[in-house]
Amino acid sequence: MRNPNPLEFTTDLAVAVGDYYEYSMAHANQQEKIAGRQAIFDLVVRRMPANKVVGEFEREGVKYDERVKRDFLINAGLEQIAAYFLEARGNTELKTYLQEAQGITDPEFLDWVEQLRFTGDVYGMPEGTIFFAQEHQLRVHERFEEAQVFESVILNTINPQTNVASTANDIAEVTNKIILEGGSRRAGSPQSALFNSRAARIGGFTASSNVAFGMEYQEKVGGTHGHSYVMLHPDEYSAFKAQTNTLRDKVCFLLDTYNLQKAFETALSIVEEENLEHCAFRIDSGNLLQQAHWIHQQMKDRGYGRERYTLIASDDLTAGKIARLEREEADIDKYLLGTFVVNPPKPVEGVYKLAAFYDDKEELILRGKLSESREKSTLPGIKQVYRITGTDGFYKRDVIAFEGEDISKYLNEGDTAEGLLVPIIIKGEQVYDFPTIAEISERRKEQLAKLRDATQYKVIVSEGVQQAQDMIREDYGFATRTIFS
Amino acid sequence: MRNPNPLEFTTDLAVAVGDYYEYSMAHANQQEKIAGRQAIFDLVVRRMPANKVVGEFEREGVKYDERVKRDFLINAGLEQIAAYFLEARGNTELKTYLQEAQGITDPEFLDWVEQLRFTGDVYGMPEGTIFFAQEHQLRVHERFEEAQVFESVILNTINPQTNVASTANDIAEVTNKIILEGGSRRAGSPQSALFNSRAARIGGFTASSNVAFGMEYQEKVGGTHGHSYVMLHPDEYSAFKAQTNTLRDKVCFLLDTYNLQKAFETALSIVEEENLEHCAFRIDSGNLLQQAHWIHQQMKDRGYGRERYTLIASDDLTAGKIARLEREEADIDKYLLGTFVVNPPKPVEGVYKLAAFYDDKEELILRGKLSESREKSTLPGIKQVYRITGTDGFYKRDVIAFEGEDISKYLNEGDTAEGLLVPIIIKGEQVYDFPTIAEISERRKEQLAKLRDATQYKVIVSEGVQQAQDMIREDYGFATRTIFS
Repeated sequence: MRNPNPLEFTTDLAVAVGDYYEYSMAHANQQEKIAGRQAIFDLVVRRMPANKVVGEFEREGVKYDERVKRDFLINAGLEQIAAYFLEARGNTELKTYLQEAQGITDPEFLDWVEQLRFTGDVYGMPEGTIFFAQEHQLRVHERFEEAQVFESVILNTINPQTNVASTANDIAEVTNKIILEGGSRRAGSPQSALFNSRAARIGGFTASSNVAFGMEYQEKVGGTHGHSYVMLHPDEYSAFKAQTNTLRDKVCFLLDTYNLQKAFETALSIVEEENLEHCAFRIDSGNLLQQAHWIHQQMKDRGYGRERYTLIASDDLTAGKIARLEREEADIDKYLLGTFVVNPPKPVEGVYKLAAFYDDKEELILRGKLSESREKSTLPGIKQVYRITGTDGFYKRDVIAFEGEDISKYLNEGDTAEGLLVPIIIKGEQVYDFPTIAEISERRKEQLAKLRDATQYKVIVSEGVQQAQDMIREDYGFATRTIFS
Repeated sequence: MRNPNPLEFTTDLAVAVGDYYEYSMAHANQQEKIAGRQAIFDLVVRRMPANKVVGEFEREGVKYDERVKRDFLINAGLEQIAAYFLEARGNTELKTYLQEAQGITDPEFLDWVEQLRFTGDVYGMPEGTIFFAQEHQLRVHERFEEAQVFESVILNTINPQTNVASTANDIAEVTNKIILEGGSRRAGSPQSALFNSRAARIGGFTASSNVAFGMEYQEKVGGTHGHSYVMLHPDEYSAFKAQTNTLRDKVCFLLDTYNLQKAFETALSIVEEENLEHCAFRIDSGNLLQQAHWIHQQMKDRGYGRERYTLIASDDLTAGKIARLEREEADIDKYLLGTFVVNPPKPVEGVYKLAAFYDDKEELILRGKLSESREKSTLPGIKQVYRITGTDGFYKRDVIAFEGEDISKYLNEGDTAEGLLVPIIIKGEQVYDFPTIAEISERRKEQLAKLRDATQYKVIVSEGVQQAQDMIREDYGFATRTIFS
């Protein structure tokens, strides 16, 4: 009998999670004897995705999220990708697979697979950094083949965390209330649940319910009980009573297992019997606005002040729905979000592209992915993202320039420029001290405080980079439009 | 210096990936001395999600997927969840975390956490089964607390695979061409990449590009080269030439790195120089329909027959886009899909709910999650899903009934009934032999061949189950509507 396969994920697998073409290219380069050229790859979001939810609308019976293009993203996931770069190794299992299942016999290539490891340099934006389209979050310097095999794991580690952190930040922007992440059950895999909880905390969530995440980061997690707990008891009274015996003033009554109004009466009777000074109510389905107003009115009518209870709302909430609840004064103390924050409507489409390489004469050759549309292209060369701060302390603009290019013309008197990409790994060794999640979330807040109006914010491509891109465009015939535009 | 944390996922973590309330409930039950009651939980999709993409539309500058409600789903993920049930264990690390970070001191509870393991029964639909709303894919019999701690990992293991398998099946329904999965780079995490590749193969995809998935299942994977490969060479000619030297007639020219028409001319010149009998072209961006027609015309004008080349299309394809390419005779041989198949627009909202438990007198108590809307409710009791096949060999209807309930009234003369849920784990031991992925995909095909019209297909809730649900509704006041409907 075959044992079931859990599809676990460990760093041993990191070099193998990827597209076979990453290995084919390495093999082709070996055969052509051009393997080992030093290359520079950028991870970049070419254009902002339209995945910021601001409301919802219906069309022929199907509900859609009303969304707009993002103005900016919050980066996350650098810590995990650094761990893969540092720990991932080619191995005999991978070699044997390529040999047996793929029929590869070339001993030189098979040796390379077995010995594979990352020995290059990684520069990255510290997590919690605001960034814009065309700006690279990550820059990798390594032999072409070794840099290329990490492509998939870079993208599926950094993009999703960036997506969740940015979505969490949207929610933090529409409410000052406590925001709890409870999306483990709606994640795309157990590992995604860990990524999501981490990214939501970076993006401004207060806490998580995910125990494994709490263990990994020694963060406190929260949660009391679900519908199944109420249903295990003969009636709501016994369930609520048992919870109250254990939790006293910290009790949280989940009201919507059966009938919300009856549940509320039951909860109140226990509050009185037990002389509780405080309790919490959680509402989790139906019209949350109506329910919240009804509960507040009931409590007021019975002489309970607002300090006597906490109101928690969950159910598929979005930034749009929360904005409405806030606007219509639902007066909710805590929001618990699952589904939406861990499943934003569109992925963040960061791509990992060759920006330059040293040819056999050690000359630096610049490369950019071209497209008829400039925003679908990527910028060539070894670049830095400079953030310019004015004398008033606010960010003025970003400049994407070659590392070391003179950017003084983009600065006024008194402006300061900060290179956003910092060294993370040099020659395969860690040189960066990873901050705590709380520190990362703090960085995000500091950055937001210095950003005046994201819709008006300018990102300038330096003359040097622009000229290099234009030269490539001319060389490859992009000066004129083709029939496929 | 702190080492970066890769957020790996292993079965050791399986019991911890979940919401803290799963532990709080266990703790509360211990304190109330009702822990250890045998419970029955169902995993069920209460209503079909509107995530079947049939096209796209634009609204105020934002593109939306045109989608409809699903008629049915294809289940997947049973193998992985079985592995977690069999292998996951409570452990000292988890105990220490709950003790130190959460401040829990109760020794009885901490011992329970450390000793925790699954010793119950699991019944499930074999993977590749067609199923409908209200039908449970999985039924778990175990002590309430042990059954409850697996909730999150059940949902984030089975729901996403079911979503991807069902989406892959949509695509297989609109084309008979070869369909390749290449979504590793767009996955939500490295582990999700493994889940997705597996589920896409179950749902009807031909092959995957994901090397780690190939290793796990000893499946062959495919792929040749990407844009970076072309860009590493001085020009397309050298890149194409080097590829041809290695691959000969199996060469695949990626045409859209720079300018598609120029790339096509370059490729053709090499085909002629090298006297290739066959080559492949891959198009990956822009207007694929126009490009395909143009390539076919060019090849025809130059006297190349259709047998001389293969045309492969990629770029964010959906079932809707492929249907259009097929309708307008783009004559594409292979489709390579990433983004969309691994990121369907809405999650499958399977829920894991208490259906019954044995109370302290060993009496079976039935439970269902109620809601004002019947389709948001869950059905009580220990149930089986019976699929009725008529004398013509086609499926007639499904009946959700109590296990052992007399269902003869739902059958006509000659009809046969098959219980879809089979034993997977009994008393914590594996009793089911997991099929290969090819066998699972075959089961899907056999089932589809027997399903005449999914939109008309009837799922009947047996009188026994219906009466039990009605009794619960009456007991808890759902006979009349409330103000929050």
